[in-house]
Amino acid sequence: MDLQEVLNDIKTEVLDAGLKGGLPDYIPELANIDPEKFGMHLQTLDGRSFSFGDSQEKFSIQSISKVFTLVKAFQYKGSGLWDRVGVEPSGDPFNSLQQLEFESGIPRNPLINAGALLTADILVSELRNPKLDFLEFVRSLAGSREVYYNEKVAYSELSCSHRNAAMVNLMKSFGNIQNDVNLVLDFYCHACSIEMSCSELAKAFLVFSNHGKLPHDQQQILSVSDTKRINSIMHACGFYDEVGMFSYRVGLPGKSGVGGGIVAIHPSDYSVAVWAPELNGKGNSEKGMMALELLTTKTGYSIF
Amino acid sequence: MDLQEVLNDIKTEVLDAGLKGGLPDYIPELANIDPEKFGMHLQTLDGRSFSFGDSQEKFSIQSISKVFTLVKAFQYKGSGLWDRVGVEPSGDPFNSLQQLEFESGIPRNPLINAGALLTADILVSELRNPKLDFLEFVRSLAGSREVYYNEKVAYSELSCSHRNAAMVNLMKSFGNIQNDVNLVLDFYCHACSIEMSCSELAKAFLVFSNHGKLPHDQQQILSVSDTKRINSIMHACGFYDEVGMFSYRVGLPGKSGVGGGIVAIHPSDYSVAVWAPELNGKGNSEKGMMALELLTTKTGYSIF
Amino acid sequence: MDLQEVLNDIKTEVLDAGLKGGLPDYIPELANIDPEKFGMHLQTLDGRSFSFGDSQEKFSIQSISKVFTLVKAFQYKGSGLWDRVGVEPSGDPFNSLQQLEFESGIPRNPLINAGALLTADILVSELRNPKLDFLEFVRSLAGSREVYYNEKVAYSELSCSHRNAAMVNLMKSFGNIQNDVNLVLDFYCHACSIEMSCSELAKAFLVFSNHGKLPHDQQQILSVSDTKRINSIMHACGFYDEVGMFSYRVGLPGKSGVGGGIVAIHPSDYSVAVWAPELNGKGNSEKGMMALELLTTKTGYSIF
Amino acid sequence: MDLQEVLNDIKTEVLDAGLKGGLPDYIPELANIDPEKFGMHLQTLDGRSFSFGDSQEKFSIQSISKVFTLVKAFQYKGSGLWDRVGVEPSGDPFNSLQQLEFESGIPRNPLINAGALLTADILVSELRNPKLDFLEFVRSLAGSREVYYNEKVAYSELSCSHRNAAMVNLMKSFGNIQNDVNLVLDFYCHACSIEMSCSELAKAFLVFSNHGKLPHDQQQILSVSDTKRINSIMHACGFYDEVGMFSYRVGLPGKSGVGGGIVAIHPSDYSVAVWAPELNGKGNSEKGMMALELLTTKTGYSIF
Repeated sequence: MDLQEVLNDIKTEVLDAGLKGGLPDYIPELANIDPEKFGMHLQTLDGRSFSFGDSQEKFSIQSISKVFTLVKAFQYKGSGLWDRVGVEPSGDPFNSLQQLEFESGIPRNPLINAGALLTADILVSELRNPKLDFLEFVRSLAGSREVYYNEKVAYSELSCSHRNAAMVNLMKSFGNIQNDVNLVLDFYCHACSIEMSCSELAKAFLVFSNHGKLPHDQQQILSVSDTKRINSIMHACGFYDEVGMFSYRVGLPGKSGVGGGIVAIHPSDYSVAVWAPELNGKGNSEKGMMALELLTTKTGYSIF
Repeated sequence: MDLQEVLNDIKTEVLDAGLKGGLPDYIPELANIDPEKFGMHLQTLDGRSFSFGDSQEKFSIQSISKVFTLVKAFQYKGSGLWDRVGVEPSGDPFNSLQQLEFESGIPRNPLINAGALLTADILVSELRNPKLDFLEFVRSLAGSREVYYNEKVAYSELSCSHRNAAMVNLMKSFGNIQNDVNLVLDFYCHACSIEMSCSELAKAFLVFSNHGKLPHDQQQILSVSDTKRINSIMHACGFYDEVGMFSYRVGLPGKSGVGGGIVAIHPSDYSVAVWAPELNGKGNSEKGMMALELLTTKTGYSIF
Repeated sequence: MDLQEVLNDIKTEVLDAGLKGGLPDYIPELANIDPEKFGMHLQTLDGRSFSFGDSQEKFSIQSISKVFTLVKAFQYKGSGLWDRVGVEPSGDPFNSLQQLEFESGIPRNPLINAGALLTADILVSELRNPKLDFLEFVRSLAGSREVYYNEKVAYSELSCSHRNAAMVNLMKSFGNIQNDVNLVLDFYCHACSIEMSCSELAKAFLVFSNHGKLPHDQQQILSVSDTKRINSIMHACGFYDEVGMFSYRVGLPGKSGVGGGIVAIHPSDYSVAVWAPELNGKGNSEKGMMALELLTTKTGYSIF
Repeated sequence: MDLQEVLNDIKTEVLDAGLKGGLPDYIPELANIDPEKFGMHLQTLDGRSFSFGDSQEKFSIQSISKVFTLVKAFQYKGSGLWDRVGVEPSGDPFNSLQQLEFESGIPRNPLINAGALLTADILVSELRNPKLDFLEFVRSLAGSREVYYNEKVAYSELSCSHRNAAMVNLMKSFGNIQNDVNLVLDFYCHACSIEMSCSELAKAFLVFSNHGKLPHDQQQILSVSDTKRINSIMHACGFYDEVGMFSYRVGLPGKSGVGGGIVAIHPSDYSVAVWAPELNGKGNSEKGMMALELLTTKTGYSIF
């Protein structure tokens, strides 16, 4: 199968569909993005890559960073991590406090806001120089030094993160946050502000297709079994309260962000990232969902 | 009817009942109080007063202060206050976030934590010197200058008020808090830390029996109609998620605090305060509830 | 004070206010009522009565019947009733299942649907001939034999009472319903279908102003203390999730129904019924609420 | 890899672990089962089978039947099915009413009770002879005529299905149930009462590994794409509020039942059924979960 042709067809079909969506309005940097941006990059384990459109342009990865904080926190805590955060889908919008209250300050999973604030708390405790060391970790996954925080986005988010502050405080009231609330929020907002291109994201996620081994230097950063677990968490929890629909339409583990990016993997095979800023009502990229659905339909590849 | 004899009988019967309860454990100053403390003071509109036990000893009024912040905020905002806080019983424990989240950051009523944090925000905006001016207001109600904050209690509460911080942040995320979160919490914790005796509290609440006129200087601080409204809010919302049971057993508007105090009024007639630190599972004084139930049963007076 | 003049003024002011509301759409008999109907009847304990408009015309009392089933069940069970139903305001819409599920099939109070289905279950068990005996009880309160069920309304409601059936089944799953689900629903829908005029309702509720003694024959049907308790439950729970607002605006214990009726009492003084079919969003009569608010404002009488 | 040896090792390790759990207490037929029963059967697409223990003994499949009702209803309705039921994990216990109430009578997915009652309603409408025709369908999947309802279990469940009755009534109140409540419950309880062995279940589920084609007669009962969708729903919703943990530990799509059975599939490869009656607190077989976790760990096969 000619994967470049598949991607070309996907581009045409998605653009023809005339999908529309909204941009997040709470951060000027995200609200003012060009809504027509559209790029995709697929990277295979055997070293081939295919792409179209704005696949080399950096965008705000936002919640996709939650996978990176999860992996780093899991490296430190191992299965002890599950004492402080669950692995179940939330079934609720991405920033719900109700569930956190009923469940005694234990977030449902590490890929919703509350859970990523929890892993942020762990990294603030464990890393010597949290923001710097974390950025180096992401760079090592991507195999590139050209990955940076966008400070303007980070502080913009920090200044309007009252709901996240509510969640950290609520978890702290249950004894599930160890650091100062503002330190945790600062780390979290920085992680969300990281900018990467589809190409860089696909490369950074290829490790999850490769059973935990970095493709570019063969370093094993997660055991085979733990990689399977990270993939299962992405699959069960990576799309807010639309995980079932993503699984139904696409059938791959992955993670989305309100910056319009979605990254997904096919175990033992490939990773793929797509970017299109307009979001559906659940906060996932409209065009990105369709592009990935077409990918698994056209190739006949999915995990099911 | 000899009211002093009624009070004496109440004291005997309550002590004979051997009621037990818990002390709040999150503040050392409240956890270490002598659980045997027990006092009551009844003040009539025609100037008589009756009491027993530790009725002259000061204790931490805690949530009883929510009535004072409500009245002061109501003086500033009038019925515009109800755009930012409701008048309905919460039907939920006193510090629930779920309801606040579902109802877009509008607290159910001003006598639950979220609602009192909201009135605190108003007073931080409106008062020139918030903590000082508010204390003067409470002194003017009590007709006594011997009313103070307990700074140790205030800072003790401030250091463990993560859940309250969660609520203020959540309200701020909905645009319903105007000031800095820490300023609001500082004011709120100070208001809770005020110390008054049963005698002082009964005098300070007599204005609500007296249709809004201060008994000691005849100043009208609330209109007749607004006083009726404050009383109705106390009746509907003054006892967390036990308002129905308090109404059923006692049948008077009032307000309780986790310091073990309860104050209640009989419109046109009297005000009464009781103090006994041990609390039931709903956070209301065990002995205090029984004492007030006996009062309305023995006198045959209630609003129903 | 000339109470007839007060009522005349109320009529004028309410009609001038041009209030609009909706009619319940699920029962043809209620949906097709003339929305302009408007009547009021005030009955004093000393035997005087005042009225205007359609005060002699019968209408469907609907949820006002919940007070009658409560009183009859309370006569049978005494305070044992509170093992099966609470006395707290629900803080939720009148037919919520969520609360019932969380609270193990114990309805919050006897004046919401779930609670009245529970008292219906008790009466189906206790009464020899449930529907007939209950009707006789209501007639004895009203001092009139001209009180009937409207069978058409009863069966109309029965045929669309799936939500009520859900509640009875849920309570039965928790062991809190003893009879066959359909028997309970049949009794409940009949009780709701009772038709009475403002004049008859005011007379039937005068017993709650009169400390439990029927005014027309001096029979004590409830003790003084139990009457106080029924009044406190009406006050805390009589207006769905608008009890606080009714208390704030009116300040009297009472009960409303979706037929557009509201009845309220002033202890030791009077009872009053008003009827106007158009409802606000909470299911309470728009004009009725305003009429009662004007009554307590103009007379200066309320319980606060 | 010698799969029979793998299964033998699983048996030993699981028994050595000394896991304990509870039996469902609401149906005598399930409560009195021998808790030591333990069997497993793995069936590969290429025609090999491996098993141990009580793999040929029939047990009550209970909620595993929800997959069969889903497939049959999906055959009739196609994607129109998703207008009446979702594909998202519930994140709540298997018989929650709260979610159903908030979401207007649309069940979260077809594998929780509410959702299976919904598909039951569709089959009662669509099948000429619902119970008989449905049994024939299950037989055709299993490739065996020796599949029967257990009438005693069916009526036992029917007599204590008040909570299910609550759910059907609630859905009917929202217009999402078309048939008589009792007909739907009768069909549902019969489907749950079906008895099959591990061997029969594994054979019946092999079609989901085989991209929708029945292995024994090559009939295509679902399209390749629809089979992928059914698998994704099983994966996202097949284990009540423990789907994330099952995915984390096992990493296969599947479905469990309170009879102690679990069936899972590896797409393109095999299906496997395990039976051990003792359940964990989430209603899933304790030994069954461990057996399947060992299977994917030992073989290194999972979908991730």
